[in-house]
Amino acid sequence: MKKLILLALCASTAAVAAPATPEALRDAALKDDVAWEITEGLTTEVGPRLAGTEAEARARAWSAKKLKALGFSNVRIETCDMPVWRRGAESGEIIAPFPARLALTALGNSAATPAGGLEAEIVYFPTLADLEAAKDGSLKGKIAFVSHAMRPTQDGSSYGPFGQARRIGPNIAAQKGATAIVIRSIGTDHHRNPHAGNTAFAAGVTPIPAAALSIPDAENLERILARGKPVRMKLLLTPTFDARGQSGNVIAEVPGSDPKAGIIVIGGHLDSWDLGTGAIDDATGVAITAAAAKRIMAAGQPRRTIRVVWFGAEEVAGCGGPSYYERHKAERHVLTAESDFGADRIWSVTAKLGAGAKPVEARLSSVLAPLGIAFEAGEAHGGADISPLVEAGVPVIDLHQDGTRYFDLHHTPDDTLDKVDPEALRQNVAAWTAMLAIAANAAEDFGRVE
Amino acid sequence: MKKLILLALCASTAAVAAPATPEALRDAALKDDVAWEITEGLTTEVGPRLAGTEAEARARAWSAKKLKALGFSNVRIETCDMPVWRRGAESGEIIAPFPARLALTALGNSAATPAGGLEAEIVYFPTLADLEAAKDGSLKGKIAFVSHAMRPTQDGSSYGPFGQARRIGPNIAAQKGATAIVIRSIGTDHHRNPHAGNTAFAAGVTPIPAAALSIPDAENLERILARGKPVRMKLLLTPTFDARGQSGNVIAEVPGSDPKAGIIVIGGHLDSWDLGTGAIDDATGVAITAAAAKRIMAAGQPRRTIRVVWFGAEEVAGCGGPSYYERHKAERHVLTAESDFGADRIWSVTAKLGAGAKPVEARLSSVLAPLGIAFEAGEAHGGADISPLVEAGVPVIDLHQDGTRYFDLHHTPDDTLDKVDPEALRQNVAAWTAMLAIAANAAEDFGRVE
Repeated sequence: MKKLILLALCASTAAVAAPATPEALRDAALKDDVAWEITEGLTTEVGPRLAGTEAEARARAWSAKKLKALGFSNVRIETCDMPVWRRGAESGEIIAPFPARLALTALGNSAATPAGGLEAEIVYFPTLADLEAAKDGSLKGKIAFVSHAMRPTQDGSSYGPFGQARRIGPNIAAQKGATAIVIRSIGTDHHRNPHAGNTAFAAGVTPIPAAALSIPDAENLERILARGKPVRMKLLLTPTFDARGQSGNVIAEVPGSDPKAGIIVIGGHLDSWDLGTGAIDDATGVAITAAAAKRIMAAGQPRRTIRVVWFGAEEVAGCGGPSYYERHKAERHVLTAESDFGADRIWSVTAKLGAGAKPVEARLSSVLAPLGIAFEAGEAHGGADISPLVEAGVPVIDLHQDGTRYFDLHHTPDDTLDKVDPEALRQNVAAWTAMLAIAANAAEDFGRVE
Repeated sequence: MKKLILLALCASTAAVAAPATPEALRDAALKDDVAWEITEGLTTEVGPRLAGTEAEARARAWSAKKLKALGFSNVRIETCDMPVWRRGAESGEIIAPFPARLALTALGNSAATPAGGLEAEIVYFPTLADLEAAKDGSLKGKIAFVSHAMRPTQDGSSYGPFGQARRIGPNIAAQKGATAIVIRSIGTDHHRNPHAGNTAFAAGVTPIPAAALSIPDAENLERILARGKPVRMKLLLTPTFDARGQSGNVIAEVPGSDPKAGIIVIGGHLDSWDLGTGAIDDATGVAITAAAAKRIMAAGQPRRTIRVVWFGAEEVAGCGGPSYYERHKAERHVLTAESDFGADRIWSVTAKLGAGAKPVEARLSSVLAPLGIAFEAGEAHGGADISPLVEAGVPVIDLHQDGTRYFDLHHTPDDTLDKVDPEALRQNVAAWTAMLAIAANAAEDFGRVE
């Protein structure tokens, strides 16, 4: 008996020293090519994949084929129905006092202008608060122009408050009687590429045409306005709505050895805005998470099932995340994490785990530190796709990419493969692999969190 | 008598020590706002100003008014007639094997496609030499795609050889029977903004549609081609020609005290490509040279006349430079210099002066060194507008801007005011002011050069 125990201990010791330690898996992942292969393939062979469109359906088919080829189990597509907003023609120009063609793009859920466009005087609001302060009816027959002073932040936190100009600005302008609204793109670059993105109109508010100007165009318009003469603009947007669209999630698994240990759900979103090829938003997210899961799979069966979900319709707040939750909420989800912030190097990690999982945090801290990643005390929140899980109390880990340059590219035509640094991408895969190696095999229970 | 000589010497010494020394003028110019004011005004109030168009005429009117307001003498517009190429609609997409919309722009002198566009298979040439090696007739019914490997250089020298893909590639493709040609934009950035620019078809060669793809689109196309399947492209370009256009030069002077000492001609070009607002190409060039001349004017009448010329139609090899030369060749031009390489910091100076002007080079070297500018032994060439003067033997000085990032923006929609660094612009004005302070007052004759 003693001998047997000793043998078991030796085997266990041998396993710890073998290449399959989280540290060894982490270091091997620094040579990963799978994440690049997925990112390159998805951006080149599918390209833009707007939620609910035929392009997104092609992306699902491409993804299921790819995940099967990578050796995942239970690869499947789960579709869901949703209305689709599609971009049409779009153009704009300053008519007076100085003619200038504008680089702009319609915001998601924008109404269309008349087929021949519309022309109106611009009313300038330096901030969203200025628009909010405008008198009801004061914008009648006018185009509101809302600017802002968003600057880059490493953690992306400036997107929250400044992004409100896009998220709620159009609804406010519509309520105050504006004919249309243009905003300074929610971004931090200086290129003639406008930033797309969703807006929403409240029930009972009639949507108006809403567009984002590229930042150089917005700054030029501000200089024109500073001359003090009335500024007239022409705007043409012809987006369409289709009530009958379909999105969906692509799911793949690394089955765990212990069904009672539950499921770890990781992933990113498969859909993208239509102007670029969705490289950093979010081909890299689906690529990083799948590449890391594949490394765990290759190292031997983990204790917990790792479920990789490539969500549909994230960009338009569509049916992907909610339909996953509705369909799977009865299953035992024990942990979740999402990659949806580009592929620059991960610089910090936060976790929201049950009290019994403190030792897991310590091990994560130790294995991630050599990658330049600091374990921080702040809360973890997850991404939009997994928020129904997080809200339901599923523990969550956030691996935070450096977002300093993320909003230079976010939702623009410039979100293309050449913006992905292969070495930074590998650092992401290494961090995810190390995290999964610990989480999928931890003896501790992650608990529930509120 | 001795007393008088002494007084004269004292006066002369006093003059040297006074604020009007080249060194003092140089240092004062580091606080210049005039160049910014011109650059900001021209890009905001006029914007794009394609040669031969109504926009270029507006630019001339704006410029004459501005130069008068700045206090220059003999401000005038000298027009010249030329045919005009105007951009029309433009779009392109990969049809198969993977659908992809392309960011592209027609090259100057491109022919139009049929009104509904054309569709054809792509034949890939990694370099211009590969296109040159293609058999005659082998491109019949095909679209040639020519790439290149241009990389940034501080002196801009990579533009010469790599730019040939744009300058002569379309003519070669047309001669070999191609239906159309697309090239990788001649540039060094990674944005979805194609680089416009002129091409030329030889007499007897029927022009074909010719466009530049943005660099991310060209790289994506290369990845698609690397899959080994036939690649089909749709291309729509509807540019037009108009035989009856008008361009012209805007001329302003700082009259010299000694008519026999001749005229120094400086300037840049007023026209721009139509996609951006022509900020670095070449609003800054006209701004820098005028701001420097104004500083000389304000410091007291120089010995030589400084003639500031804002040339028309440089970008399209039009009538501005040649018509200036034809009209003024009988005048005594003693020196010329042009600013047409953006507004990053000047890092070197070269001069081609007669042998008797060696002391001038020494003084230039001394006054420019504190600005970080090295006097180099290489030849000076001048810009395109002043090349008829230089070819006729007029001495020339080149103040070389750092061009490392110039071809990121050159001829793109991104050539806008926000790309101009006000501090670097001031360094340019300081260098030009110091150069003019020496050249306009030098006792030496600059001679003639071959």
